[in-house]
Formats: sequence, structure tokens, C-alpha cells
Amino acid sequence: MKSIDQLTTIIHSGIDKINWKKEPRGLYDPIDYVLSLGGKRIRPLLTLMACNLFSDNIQPALNTALGIEIFHNFTLLHDDIMDRADVRRGQLTVHKKWNDNTAILSGDVMQIASYQFIAKTPEKYLKQTLDLFSQTAAEICEGQQYDVDFEKRENVTGDEYLEMIRLKTAVLLGCSLKTGAWIGGAGEEDAKNLYDFGINIGLAFQLKDDILDVYGDESTFGKKIGGDILCNKKTYLLIQAIELAKENDASELKNWLSTSDPTSAFSKINAVTSVYNRLGVKAICEDKMQFFYNKGIENLEKVSVSENKKQELRNLAEKLMLRQE
Amino acid sequence: MKSIDQLTTIIHSGIDKINWKKEPRGLYDPIDYVLSLGGKRIRPLLTLMACNLFSDNIQPALNTALGIEIFHNFTLLHDDIMDRADVRRGQLTVHKKWNDNTAILSGDVMQIASYQFIAKTPEKYLKQTLDLFSQTAAEICEGQQYDVDFEKRENVTGDEYLEMIRLKTAVLLGCSLKTGAWIGGAGEEDAKNLYDFGINIGLAFQLKDDILDVYGDESTFGKKIGGDILCNKKTYLLIQAIELAKENDASELKNWLSTSDPTSAFSKINAVTSVYNRLGVKAICEDKMQFFYNKGIENLEKVSVSENKKQELRNLAEKLMLRQE
Repeated sequence: MKSIDQLTTIIHSGIDKINWKKEPRGLYDPIDYVLSLGGKRIRPLLTLMACNLFSDNIQPALNTALGIEIFHNFTLLHDDIMDRADVRRGQLTVHKKWNDNTAILSGDVMQIASYQFIAKTPEKYLKQTLDLFSQTAAEICEGQQYDVDFEKRENVTGDEYLEMIRLKTAVLLGCSLKTGAWIGGAGEEDAKNLYDFGINIGLAFQLKDDILDVYGDESTFGKKIGGDILCNKKTYLLIQAIELAKENDASELKNWLSTSDPTSAFSKINAVTSVYNRLGVKAICEDKMQFFYNKGIENLEKVSVSENKKQELRNLAEKLMLRQE
Repeated sequence: MKSIDQLTTIIHSGIDKINWKKEPRGLYDPIDYVLSLGGKRIRPLLTLMACNLFSDNIQPALNTALGIEIFHNFTLLHDDIMDRADVRRGQLTVHKKWNDNTAILSGDVMQIASYQFIAKTPEKYLKQTLDLFSQTAAEICEGQQYDVDFEKRENVTGDEYLEMIRLKTAVLLGCSLKTGAWIGGAGEEDAKNLYDFGINIGLAFQLKDDILDVYGDESTFGKKIGGDILCNKKTYLLIQAIELAKENDASELKNWLSTSDPTSAFSKINAVTSVYNRLGVKAICEDKMQFFYNKGIENLEKVSVSENKKQELRNLAEKLMLRQE
């Protein structure tokens, strides 16, 4: 078994080896830029770890893992245009550094590149990997569309939100694990359990993100605290707060949700956070996160390999839950 | 052998059968809209015709053909955002009817859908079809990038232009034919000759488009005449004119190229067309078109099936050259 650190090194070296220094440079330079910004590389890591549960040779899963990471970065590139986000990982986003058209077109070719890597999946597993990958990719777009739709809706329920983040975030973790398991030679039940592990850890991961966006430490989180509050993002915290708030809290929340004056940003973040505190929605969100985390661990327990082989995946899941960034 | 009309009917019915009435509607409705606008369906037709040269059963090539047509329509959708085009086939473009974000995201899922159809290629030919399709898709993006780059350059050569339209337009015709030939059971040499036939016909097709944009009849062409002139598009006509123009013609052309006042649009189109006429660039462009058309027909002649089987492809190529729309 390879350690997380060893696998991460393999992934970084795999990404570094891809040649994006191609013509026309206006098309390929932004891809090189986006992939050089770093990131946790969780998805390809999950692919290799899942493969490694069933096979000592993780090499056959490397291209698939890279394809998934390229796809993930493509979604960030296009999402940043749609969200008008200026900064990603402390650097200018592509549409800010270049322009919208470049970001659209480089994103398009990045999506194609992700399929070129997926196509290098060992032929025995190609068709099923391709189908799961495409289904997952479409689900991610669906999740993004629901996210956009929810911005304009007042009455989003907690369950609708969870379904949205399942599509937008969790399915790609599930896909990463399942394809890795297949390539490692896993049986269908083990592959399914790893997929479900990915879904549940993914849901917990996103809920953690929502909490960090309000309660994180700016110096470690890497993003401005309160961004979700400022743009009235229908996170699990806000949905719970809207459901629970009565009288003064309800009217205060309602007032702040209709305020978009940038000069009152600081007051808005403080006031909404205070409402959250009074209603105890952080604990509700943490409970939900813990619930999915536990479900994920149960899925992992069912995978028919020895406990010590699964230890690294358990460590990774725990690290994602305890993270402050 | 099936006739062009029979194959076109099969394609239309295949497109109509795809279910885009899925949730979230904001994501899938624009795809339904784009595909319902029609179009000549030349690319899937070429796939089925190439398959039909080698096999009586074109059914195994249908999904691949549909994947290519979906991909082509995806490129139009994203190109229209980048070109700020308001109208396509007489109807509002997606980013005008909805908005930019919708056009970006629906385009993304359309690209994924095209891969889902390509993935239904018979397993024996899946890997090679997938690789050619991805390579072609990337080349189309490269062509689009060169097209954008050329807008800002003064010194584009005729050869650079031809390479740009090879990437942007011709390779997808080549890919359509080659994949169809493979699925029909063609040998590699026949498949290659059909690919080259597609490239050459594609180049001729685009040159015809450039000519129609200046010399076409608005009532049949379906687009405003002179659009390329108005936006200083570096077409083969303009590149030749810049190369050949001397003294008065050169300065007049230069002046008009620096004019973007919309109130002088009519004068600009008339004046630039007059320069074209004086320099005889229409005939130069037609000669080049004929040159590629002839090369294409030579490629087709080398394909090792009986002459009468190739008649429909020859008819189609001729129709594309003689078209007024």
C-alpha cells in the first residue's frame, strides 16, 4: 500500500508532465495556469487510493485520476465566470487575468482534455468508466444549475439543498473512488460501497465548507469569511435559519437578505452570524455533517478488504472533516 | 444503399427521439431549443453515408453520428456567446434568449451529451472513435482561438487562414466520414481517403461560405450579406485583397478597415465589395475553392468501393459547392 503522501507525489508529477505548452498559446496557457495554482488533488487521490485497495499497481488508474482532476478544474474555471469570481486560490481567475471568451474556450478544450485522459483507462474498464464519468459530469452541471436556480428562490428546503450538493460536489468523489476500484479489479459491490462512501463524505465535506465560510479562520481558510452570507447563498445554515427564525430574528434575517449595499458588508456578516448563533444552526449543520460522515464510514466498513488497508482512506476522510481550510 | 433523403429522415428522427425534457429545465431547455432550430445535418449525414459505403446496416453508426451533430451544435452555442451573435438560423441565440451563464452551462452539458452518444459507438471501434473525436474537438477549439487571434492581427497570410478553417471547419467533416467508414468496416486506407475527402470538401465549403457572405442573395443565404466585411473578418477574400491592393485601393481598404461606425455600414459593404471586384479576389477565392473541391473528389475516387456507391457522396459535395445558402 502506498501512503497518501506517496500517491500525492505521483499525482503532482503526473500533472506536471502534461504538456500544455502548445499552440495556440492563447488557448492552452490558461489551462497550464489553472492547473499550476494547486489544490488538494483529493479526487485523483481517491481514485488511486481506491485502486490501491485492490491492486498493488496503481499505474493503470493514473490517467483516469488525472482526467478527473482536469475535469474538476474545468468546472472551477467555468463556475468562476458564472459567479464573477475574481480570485481562486489566492490568484486571479482566468476570466479576470485574460477575458471571458478565453475562459469559455480554454474551459471547453480542458473538458475535451479530461476525456482524452479518461480514454486512456485500461480498455477492459473503458466503457463503464466513460459512462460513469459522463453521467457524473452531467450531474455536476445539473447541480450548478440548481445552485443558480436556488439563488432566485425563497423556499429552498434542506433536502433540496442536500440534493444540489450531492450533484455539484459529492458525485465526483463517488466517481473518483468507483473508477479507481474498478481499475484495481474490485467487484461491483465493493465499487458501489466505495461510491456511496464518496457520496456521504462529499456531502459532509460540503457542509464543512459551509460552516468554514462563516466560522472559519481567514488566515487558514484561504477565502474571505462570510462570502456566502454576503451573496445570500442558500447554504444549509441559511436554510435552517430561515426555517427556525421567529419574530425579531425572522425580520432581521429578511432585512439583511434584501440588503446588497457593499458598505454594510461587515455589519451584514456580523448580524447574520449573530442570528445563526442565537438559533444554533451551526450545531444543526455539524450534526448533519457528522451524520453523513458516519454513513460514509459505514459504507467503507462494508468494503471487503482488510481493515488496515482502509486506514488511509479513513484518515483522509477524518482529515477532510477536521480541516480548517 | 440509402439515399440522402432517407438518411436525413433517419437523422431527424434520431434527434427528435432524444429526451431533453429533463430537470433542471433551465439546463436542458436551451439544448432542446438549439437542436430544434434545424440545420443541414451534414456531419451526421456524412457519417451514415460513409458507413453505408461499406455496410448495408447504418444503424450501428447512428449514435456516433448524433454525437457529432450534438457536438457541432454545442460549438455554435459557445461561438455565438464569444461572437456576441444575436441570431442563429433566424432565431434568437441562447445567450440572447436566456443569458450568458445559461449558454455557458447548457453548452457544457451538451458537450458531455455528445460524448455520451459517442460512447455508444460499437465497442470494437470505441477507442479509436473516441480518440479521433477528442482530437477533432480540440482542433476545433484551436481553430476558434486562431480565428479570434487573427482579428487582432494585420498580417494574416492565406495559408494561415486555410489552416485555421481546416481546424475550425474541415476536421469535423473528416472525422464524421472516418468514424462512419470505420463502423461500416472500412480498411484504414479507405478511411483515410474519406477523411481527406472531408478535409478538402470542408475547406471548399468554408471558402464558399466566405464568397456567399459577400456575393450571396440575402433572401436565400439566411444571413445578412456583408457581415464579414463589417467586422473586418480576415476571410480569404480580404487577405487576398490586402495582399493585392495598391495605391488608391490599398488606402481605401485601410480606411474602411479602421471604420466601425454603424451608420456607415451600408457604404462600407459597398465600398469594400467594389475593391474586391476591382482586384478580382472573388475569382481567386473560387479558384481555390475549386482546387480543394477537385482534390476532395480525387480522394473519393481512391476509395475502394464501386463508383455507383460513391455517387451520393459526389452529389452531396457538388450540392454544397453550388449552394446559395
